[in-house]
Amino acid sequence: HILFCGSCGRMRICGNKKCDTPSSISPTCKLSRKKIQINQSYGWVRSVRAQKANVFLHVNDGSSLQSLQVVASSELSDPLLTFGSAVEVTGILKKSPHQKQPVELDAKNHKFIVFCFIFFFLRTFPLKSKSDMALSIFANFLISGDNGFVEINTPIITSNDCEGAGELFQVEVIKAPYGENFFSVPAYLTVSGQLHLEVVSGAFSKVYTFGPTFRAENSQSRRHLAEFYMVEAEISFTQSLEDLTKVMEDMFRFATEHVLAHCVEDVDLFHKHVTPGQKLKEYLVSFLRITYREAIDILRRSSERFAFPTDWGCDLKTEHEKYLVKHCGNIPVFVTDYPYDLKPFYARDNQDHPERTAAAVDLLVPGVGELCGGSLREERLNLLSARAGLEDVYSWYLDLRRFGSVPHGGFGLGFERYLQCILGVDNIKDVVPFPRFSHSCLL
Amino acid sequence: HILFCGSCGRMRICGNKKCDTPSSISPTCKLSRKKIQINQSYGWVRSVRAQKANVFLHVNDGSSLQSLQVVASSELSDPLLTFGSAVEVTGILKKSPHQKQPVELDAKNHKFIVFCFIFFFLRTFPLKSKSDMALSIFANFLISGDNGFVEINTPIITSNDCEGAGELFQVEVIKAPYGENFFSVPAYLTVSGQLHLEVVSGAFSKVYTFGPTFRAENSQSRRHLAEFYMVEAEISFTQSLEDLTKVMEDMFRFATEHVLAHCVEDVDLFHKHVTPGQKLKEYLVSFLRITYREAIDILRRSSERFAFPTDWGCDLKTEHEKYLVKHCGNIPVFVTDYPYDLKPFYARDNQDHPERTAAAVDLLVPGVGELCGGSLREERLNLLSARAGLEDVYSWYLDLRRFGSVPHGGFGLGFERYLQCILGVDNIKDVVPFPRFSHSCLL
Repeated sequence: HILFCGSCGRMRICGNKKCDTPSSISPTCKLSRKKIQINQSYGWVRSVRAQKANVFLHVNDGSSLQSLQVVASSELSDPLLTFGSAVEVTGILKKSPHQKQPVELDAKNHKFIVFCFIFFFLRTFPLKSKSDMALSIFANFLISGDNGFVEINTPIITSNDCEGAGELFQVEVIKAPYGENFFSVPAYLTVSGQLHLEVVSGAFSKVYTFGPTFRAENSQSRRHLAEFYMVEAEISFTQSLEDLTKVMEDMFRFATEHVLAHCVEDVDLFHKHVTPGQKLKEYLVSFLRITYREAIDILRRSSERFAFPTDWGCDLKTEHEKYLVKHCGNIPVFVTDYPYDLKPFYARDNQDHPERTAAAVDLLVPGVGELCGGSLREERLNLLSARAGLEDVYSWYLDLRRFGSVPHGGFGLGFERYLQCILGVDNIKDVVPFPRFSHSCLL
Repeated sequence: HILFCGSCGRMRICGNKKCDTPSSISPTCKLSRKKIQINQSYGWVRSVRAQKANVFLHVNDGSSLQSLQVVASSELSDPLLTFGSAVEVTGILKKSPHQKQPVELDAKNHKFIVFCFIFFFLRTFPLKSKSDMALSIFANFLISGDNGFVEINTPIITSNDCEGAGELFQVEVIKAPYGENFFSVPAYLTVSGQLHLEVVSGAFSKVYTFGPTFRAENSQSRRHLAEFYMVEAEISFTQSLEDLTKVMEDMFRFATEHVLAHCVEDVDLFHKHVTPGQKLKEYLVSFLRITYREAIDILRRSSERFAFPTDWGCDLKTEHEKYLVKHCGNIPVFVTDYPYDLKPFYARDNQDHPERTAAAVDLLVPGVGELCGGSLREERLNLLSARAGLEDVYSWYLDLRRFGSVPHGGFGLGFERYLQCILGVDNIKDVVPFPRFSHSCLL
């Protein structure tokens, strides 16, 4: 099994599965100077070039964007051997006489098996393409990034009908007895792990979850999926929005610097073919911070004609968010202190009459608009109780305050939107292998 | 913010969030010898002991099983200060005069705020207890363990009604228009990410997923949840069950050695209070390997009276699995080559007439029974097509063979059962913070 160093392009022979992943080998590795020996490799053929005496193949096993050059005898004339074939190749790893690759596999006079010809039906199985491969490598890196919080798996099925029941998916066993629920109560797919994280943040002071969330939005938008992933964090004893925005900014920086350091080729591939001219590094220079009041002022002063109103108290729509990001120089922008009535019941009241804002923040980023939303949570029982209808459906949430709560806050980041932002992918459906949206649930 | 070294029990001052997690500090760390300075700490009070001049508190912030001893002036007489209070303490970190702890926080003459008294209603919010905290720390370690595979998020909502439709949850928007589905087709919660991993393994040769799966089993068993996590792996070009069992064994060893190396205190806590006498290390000595035929012979020779039959062709029930593990000396046991008709449609036919077995394997472990199930997948179109009904509902799965497939195989490991096994927890509902099972979906 042959692996490639993602940094230097050199190859190494992987003897066991505990070996480093290709991209983590240092650029100064000396692996290609190892003693030549017989190697066995599996993979899929990326190209075939026949010459008089030899056939040159590029074989890729999915562990790197780079392929292994294989030199086989031209006597090898399997009709199945073509772009997309799956092959097993045995040969000797040699220094390549060409500049393009440091080594190549000499497969002449060795076992060479063509398993099959694979027809690439990319639309149905989108991961069988180079750029989608790169996407999954990104996800792989990002998920394993450790930010020091305790990870909690918040439940997928919940009896909370949180935040506007219209967008909920209900869950029920197919052949439920008439009038009876499997869980005894109506159950839904989670729209956010936040409330459960708030429970757990009463024992661990810093917690996060990374998991699927669901919204039944009947939308074909380029920014929405019915099933998407969120990184959500909750921090106990936090008393200012500044603390939260610092964590959000640090997390964005950390992840993006990680991607820039470890996935150079993948980023290049995207920015060359998908978003020419995108300068990811510029996003890391400085994050701007404005209040909702300032955002409204900017929108009202602009000469742009918006489809939706820009009065104080109106929600910021995608068109507004994208304008604000552009206005601020195409860098990430925090918008803080939204009107209290625009934010969910758990957002903390700033008690700043007459405007009455909430200690809530959104992070807007180039190409996407809203990427993160966060807030301090209302920990004061009397203020929370004043919100209509809470006692009926969220008595347990009020209990968390009733029996003791501390100042705390948190935020959620849409993972697919983050991928859209850093890769410059226009349609959110293109950053996941199996996108789910209204009228579509392939496989 | 003060952190504790999980290995040596020493404390360190955490200046930024990028610091190592407490338990990853080496046992030889010299952090407690750092210069004394004023520190601020947040946490929950574990104990209060009042003496003449001083009040001694143990404060814990969830980052470790160990608490910080705080010495406050006895003039501090907040009626809210008691077991469960949330506090902010400022003070000087000093060498403790007592043997019990290396350092303590001298909070006399410093700011001391009691936020509130927290009533511990553990039944509803189970994570607010010491042993549940330990469980989440385990999960945290295990999830971040890197085994060299590419991580793929397989979808939660799927249009496949895989493996026995009776146990499926259906997903639908609450107010679906009459006769119309949100996704245009009936959609279900996934029972396994395997089929999707098989798609992706056609581009990356080694893939895995770690995510929630769902079974609507109407059961109050100690081994079943309606929502549980699986680690599933798929490996292309694998041609023998031995390759698979090696990965399964290595993974179990790696995770368990990791837990034993990094969570000494947590393991001790469990084995002291929950399962006295359990010897986790013994599981790592050797894994046994028997065939289904041998398993049946062992069961039939035993004097044990089983509730279920033990003829060739009968499925192994929990009572059989537990007996086999005990018979083999209370170590993990692989059972291979099950009758073809007992295994799902994708298991590879061994074509060993007249018995006809499948290249499938289960891993049985002490205390739990079946922990993992795996198989080589049937890559031969003609053999797969012969299974009744597949063309209707799994034409896309047959297409994967039709348009080219390679030998491959994989397995799934039930994460909560793994926690049960290594911690010796009898009831699977006790290893997750928000268990879901029939008639129960709290919060």
